[in-house]
Amino acid sequence: MTNAVAVVLLSGGLDSATTLAIARNQGFACHTLAFDYGQRHKAELKSAQQVANAMEVVEHRVIAIDLGQFGGSALTDPAIGVPEKPVEGIPVTYVPARNTILLACALAYAEVIRSSDIFIGVNAVDYSGYPDCRPEYIAAFQSMARLATKAGVEGMPVTIHTPLIEWTKAQIIQQGAQLGVDYALTVSCYQADDTGRACGRCDACRLRKEGFKTAGHSDPTRYR
Amino acid sequence: MTNAVAVVLLSGGLDSATTLAIARNQGFACHTLAFDYGQRHKAELKSAQQVANAMEVVEHRVIAIDLGQFGGSALTDPAIGVPEKPVEGIPVTYVPARNTILLACALAYAEVIRSSDIFIGVNAVDYSGYPDCRPEYIAAFQSMARLATKAGVEGMPVTIHTPLIEWTKAQIIQQGAQLGVDYALTVSCYQADDTGRACGRCDACRLRKEGFKTAGHSDPTRYR
Repeated sequence: MTNAVAVVLLSGGLDSATTLAIARNQGFACHTLAFDYGQRHKAELKSAQQVANAMEVVEHRVIAIDLGQFGGSALTDPAIGVPEKPVEGIPVTYVPARNTILLACALAYAEVIRSSDIFIGVNAVDYSGYPDCRPEYIAAFQSMARLATKAGVEGMPVTIHTPLIEWTKAQIIQQGAQLGVDYALTVSCYQADDTGRACGRCDACRLRKEGFKTAGHSDPTRYR
Repeated sequence: MTNAVAVVLLSGGLDSATTLAIARNQGFACHTLAFDYGQRHKAELKSAQQVANAMEVVEHRVIAIDLGQFGGSALTDPAIGVPEKPVEGIPVTYVPARNTILLACALAYAEVIRSSDIFIGVNAVDYSGYPDCRPEYIAAFQSMARLATKAGVEGMPVTIHTPLIEWTKAQIIQQGAQLGVDYALTVSCYQADDTGRACGRCDACRLRKEGFKTAGHSDPTRYR
């Protein structure tokens, strides 16, 4: 494991910060990737940079890709409101094919830096109904990825690591806290303001607040 | 089939122009996507726009995504030379995970416009050894894609169409000519100049030149 290099998707949220801490704790030299994909607020990009600095990653990169021009999601289209009550089915905060695009970029980057380990903080328990957070989706992506690249063909099959996939939010927080994650640096809110202060009412805020409570941890989130 | 909507990946080259003609001939209303991904020359983006206009697509979009910042390919890194002789194995013109990224973006766009048909002009015969042009890769991508999206989960499984995948370059040209493709608008060269004139020596030029010859068609390519 020593000297193995990993690509870690880092959104600036609680889950990906914990995922980075886990990858690092497993001995990986971590390269982190954030995405400027037309999301409603840029506070999460600042958070991602701060988390990357705090965890002393090898390199942190931001990839610009304008998914907002497609529309179709409350997270990229200001005309669609963020729901503040739980909904049935897949919510409007779903971004079409987002994890497929992010993992595809991670796959490219991994191949260039000769890494065969990609970490993503998806979660199927508190997943708000997103199809691309389910274990069967991740397994299918990995199968595809092993056929997609020169590295895969030449004997370096990639592994998609999803350490949080079966955990509750409280379990994620307990694990991250043990590994020294500073959750004050992270932003989960779908509609945070420019300084990263959370609304306290959206799906993401509700899950996070409940997670700290259940974990018996003080909640460092800055609410507005 | 009437009124069915398709997303067609359009690079500005010969193969994708033919693919668009085939999709259109099958009765699809076509939305085309080109990518500004840091390729060496922008002539292919101009070609894509001209081909889209000539084939009267519903809409043509250009997605900007900076794969060049990763490097690792002669097509995105000016420091790596384009080979002018056939090579063994996968050539340096391979762009890490390119088709996975392009198809992922097409999947997002398809979901937003409620299309379940994506066309890509990959070819496994003259494919220059790229792993992400093989039928087994495309099949794996389709399996993954059907688990990835809200549309897939809700009963609109996506199909990845690869009409050219088993054809020779000559067969592609014959089919496209029958469907009225104006190959003078297309650019295949890996190192075309700004006006789209081809080098005549790279892999892509060699395959194209040979294709027109074998097809018994006059070659409209502008060489410099």
